Amino acid sequence: MDSILGYLAANEARFVDELCAYASIPSVSAQSQHAGDLRSSADWIARRCRSAGLVTVVHETKGNPIVIARTPNHDPKKPTFLVYGHYDVQPAEPFELWTSPPFQPRRVGRDVFARGVSDNKGQHLAHIIATEAWLKSGKTLPCNLTFLIEGEEEVGSTALYEFLPVQAAKLACAAVVISDSGIPSLKHPALTYALRGIAAFEIRLDGPSRDLHSGIYGGSLDNPAMALCQLLGQMRDKKGRINVPGYYDDVVKLSAYERKQMARVPFSETKYRKFLGVPELFGEVGFTPDEQRSARPTFEINGLTSGYQGEGSKTIVPAWASAKVTLRLVPNQSPKKVILAVKRQLQKLCPPTVKLTLKHGHGGEPYLVDPTSSLAQGALRALQKGFGHEPVLLREGGSIPIVSAFKKHLRAETLLLGMALPDDNPHSPNEKFSLDAFAAGMRTSALLWPELAVA
Amino acid sequence: MDSILGYLAANEARFVDELCAYASIPSVSAQSQHAGDLRSSADWIARRCRSAGLVTVVHETKGNPIVIARTPNHDPKKPTFLVYGHYDVQPAEPFELWTSPPFQPRRVGRDVFARGVSDNKGQHLAHIIATEAWLKSGKTLPCNLTFLIEGEEEVGSTALYEFLPVQAAKLACAAVVISDSGIPSLKHPALTYALRGIAAFEIRLDGPSRDLHSGIYGGSLDNPAMALCQLLGQMRDKKGRINVPGYYDDVVKLSAYERKQMARVPFSETKYRKFLGVPELFGEVGFTPDEQRSARPTFEINGLTSGYQGEGSKTIVPAWASAKVTLRLVPNQSPKKVILAVKRQLQKLCPPTVKLTLKHGHGGEPYLVDPTSSLAQGALRALQKGFGHEPVLLREGGSIPIVSAFKKHLRAETLLLGMALPDDNPHSPNEKFSLDAFAAGMRTSALLWPELAVA
Repeated sequence: MDSILGYLAANEARFVDELCAYASIPSVSAQSQHAGDLRSSADWIARRCRSAGLVTVVHETKGNPIVIARTPNHDPKKPTFLVYGHYDVQPAEPFELWTSPPFQPRRVGRDVFARGVSDNKGQHLAHIIATEAWLKSGKTLPCNLTFLIEGEEEVGSTALYEFLPVQAAKLACAAVVISDSGIPSLKHPALTYALRGIAAFEIRLDGPSRDLHSGIYGGSLDNPAMALCQLLGQMRDKKGRINVPGYYDDVVKLSAYERKQMARVPFSETKYRKFLGVPELFGEVGFTPDEQRSARPTFEINGLTSGYQGEGSKTIVPAWASAKVTLRLVPNQSPKKVILAVKRQLQKLCPPTVKLTLKHGHGGEPYLVDPTSSLAQGALRALQKGFGHEPVLLREGGSIPIVSAFKKHLRAETLLLGMALPDDNPHSPNEKFSLDAFAAGMRTSALLWPELAVA
Repeated sequence: MDSILGYLAANEARFVDELCAYASIPSVSAQSQHAGDLRSSADWIARRCRSAGLVTVVHETKGNPIVIARTPNHDPKKPTFLVYGHYDVQPAEPFELWTSPPFQPRRVGRDVFARGVSDNKGQHLAHIIATEAWLKSGKTLPCNLTFLIEGEEEVGSTALYEFLPVQAAKLACAAVVISDSGIPSLKHPALTYALRGIAAFEIRLDGPSRDLHSGIYGGSLDNPAMALCQLLGQMRDKKGRINVPGYYDDVVKLSAYERKQMARVPFSETKYRKFLGVPELFGEVGFTPDEQRSARPTFEINGLTSGYQGEGSKTIVPAWASAKVTLRLVPNQSPKKVILAVKRQLQKLCPPTVKLTLKHGHGGEPYLVDPTSSLAQGALRALQKGFGHEPVLLREGGSIPIVSAFKKHLRAETLLLGMALPDDNPHSPNEKFSLDAFAAGMRTSALLWPELAVA
């Protein structure tokens, strides 16, 4: 392995330049004006796969292209592993909170700041580079590798969900590896064994047919903004519990073993509070913050819109009010079932003075993999060597909905080997990626294949 | 009076053209980019006053100019009346709901559609034109007239509040006449004897120092948008009562006489509901819709802002959430006292998981004038003749805060003789003004001065 790890160390400067080039493409999948940038991003990573020595195809879809890259000379006697990543990124708004432009990567010490650099460009790039190291060092990989890099992860992976069942045979694999999760610190590499699911929707309340003068009419009709506040306000109680009948019915309780494992992860409530920048923490009573954010479901308002938001005041009863909401779900909650329960509760609680409209967004199943399986144990060994530290077992609060689809269509379990640090600000202004994590991630990836191939 | 009324009738086409020219100036006082338009609007109305034969001065202020126009040859033996109006207008947003551009006046039958055409350009222009009719007909007015047209009514009249005490001696008058209120129909001209006051503020709740990934962190901290919903949602109970201790302490109860007078105004709940376009009416239990919107105080959310409002979804815990709120107040509530009570309640109910900031906006006292006074009776006679119908007595839900300032600084009562119809959409898209109301308003104004001069 020395020559492979040596290759990675010797070429680090080039890899960082490549990371910056990739992160400079504003591939925001939620915003239609960036369609061209998504195409450029797909083309960029396809070229990078080819230069690594991979056989690469850019597949057209109804949405953004899907890039498939394979190690050459497929050997049917060896196991095949699939590495998944996404080249699309979250919107960068609000721009004014970035200390440098989100799509002009800026290096500060051992960090690179840019939208998407951590989520997820840097993390799948590390795997591609590690494979290049194997191929350019003239060593024979103990397995076949397939890279699947898509461009709609941040908006629900619609194209990939159509692609997967059709291409299932060609994507057959012994396991999937995804690096799109986090680690507590560089000294605590982690295997993430559980993920939260997600269900997104928009709620809109329509009142009067137009904004009305709040002096002339106010008092004689309901205010849709007030109705929305009262409706949403009822959805969470003072103990942080979601007020929806049946919401917790399918939640798998945390075992004593799991709570003990989670407690191994270093945590300071004061540091965490200061890191978030909140006056005081808040979460479901009876659970630690780590449990609240990874093993418990939520009802999160992502955005509120109503009436006049400009300079000064406008004395109106607004015609409508709306909110974007995402529910984070945990094993074994079903997005469809939960959305239905929430819908029923909203309809029940909504007053007759406004018209309720719900618009469903994307959903994703929660996920749980057995951390004592031989594949998981192999991954833990690679992490130990790649980072030089004893790994921890984690539940992740974020969603990687595609994991459930891999299980369904490829009948493959997924190993989640993240490289993101807690202060990487994914989905936030000033997203960054640690170049130490990038390097350790490359090493782990290079070391992973022999471990998995014998597992 | 025949020659004066004849002059008004003969020149109506020109007056309508003038109204359209005036309403084409986008004099939006809430938006700083319109500073030049406010200046143009002041200059336009000053020129119009001069062409009517009035001695006109444009007074510079720290904000928008104040136009003062007087009838020539001041006679100290005659009473002086002051006519007040404002050349500034509400923002036109949301533009997409206008059927024609808000600052390109469009005539449809006997209506003109444009922002500000009813509130308040058309209404004070009617008075200036009526005075022109007196002056150009060679008749001697039985009184002196002073016109005061300001440009900050929609944003709190800051400049005028500084101007008034300084200029009080020069603005001395027996009474003030304002046409900035409504009438139930052309067959129901009205003297408005009471106004609601107003108190405006913005509330903002800050949570985390930046938008956070709702998967990674959601559940372990409060969501500022949820906190805002829960806080604001508590401010109004199910019976439509404002949940603020002391809020109703100073409210003057409606007398049986007043409730009877208000019931004289034609009202159909079904028609009103359909006109507003709401599925169902809502208001404080125990009061009619007319009472709710004119004689009872409110807590109105004018705008909500939080998190991501763009296309698609963004899975964040937003860093902050804010709301614009106006309270409509009734005699004898004090804006300062009420704001203090609301502030105390918000501070008491706000959870420690977010930081509360309140930003005070403008305030205006409610108003009540005795409808049996001789001045009021004179106004009722002019309305009867000008519109050709028996006038009604009204309370108005909107605020004209300057009325209290006239009482304080000029020691003068105000007569409110509105010309706006219920479907004029002031502060809403597709604001309009009825040319029949415009004409009847001019006639009433011409007839008013002999009635008031003998009162």
